[in-house]
Amino acid sequence: MEDTYGQRDRARGIQASLAWLIEEVGELSQSLRKGDHADRMHEFADVLAWAFSLANQADVDLEAAVERYAHGCPKCGAVPCTCP
Amino acid sequence: MEDTYGQRDRARGIQASLAWLIEEVGELSQSLRKGDHADRMHEFADVLAWAFSLANQADVDLEAAVERYAHGCPKCGAVPCTCP
Repeated sequence: MEDTYGQRDRARGIQASLAWLIEEVGELSQSLRKGDHADRMHEFADVLAWAFSLANQADVDLEAAVERYAHGCPKCGAVPCTCP
Repeated sequence: MEDTYGQRDRARGIQASLAWLIEEVGELSQSLRKGDHADRMHEFADVLAWAFSLANQADVDLEAAVERYAHGCPKCGAVPCTCP
C-alpha cells in the first residue's frame, strides 16, 4: 500500500483521504444492502485500503493499534464481552 | 474478535453493526482533527474492529479481500499507482 499509494496519499492530505474513506464506507453500505459476495469483498478491501492510507498519514501503526482488542474486550476485559 | 464479539455481533445484525462502524468513523474523524496520537490509535482500532465484525457477519474473509491491493493499484495495475 505504501509503495502503491504513499506518495499520492501524502500529497492529498488527511482531510481528503478521510472524505475518500467515507465515500467507500457508503459503497460498502450499499453492497451490504444489495450487493453480492464479490461486491462486498471489493468494498471491504477499499474501506481497509483507505483506513491504511489514513493511518500511514497519521503515523499510526495499525497492527499496534489493533492490539487494543488482542486480549478480549478493551472495556470489560472479558472473552466473550460482557458489557451491558 | 470472533471469540470476544461474534455472538453479540450476530445478534445485533448487519444494519446495527454498520451504524456502529459509522459512529466510529466519526470518532476517528474527530481524533484526526483534534486528538493526540493515543486517541488516534484507539479510534483506528475501533474502526477496524467494527469492519472485522461486519465482514464476519457478511461472510467476507478480510485477508482474502485485501489481496485486491496486493499487486499494485487494482485500477491501473501499477506500483506506484498512475491513475489520473
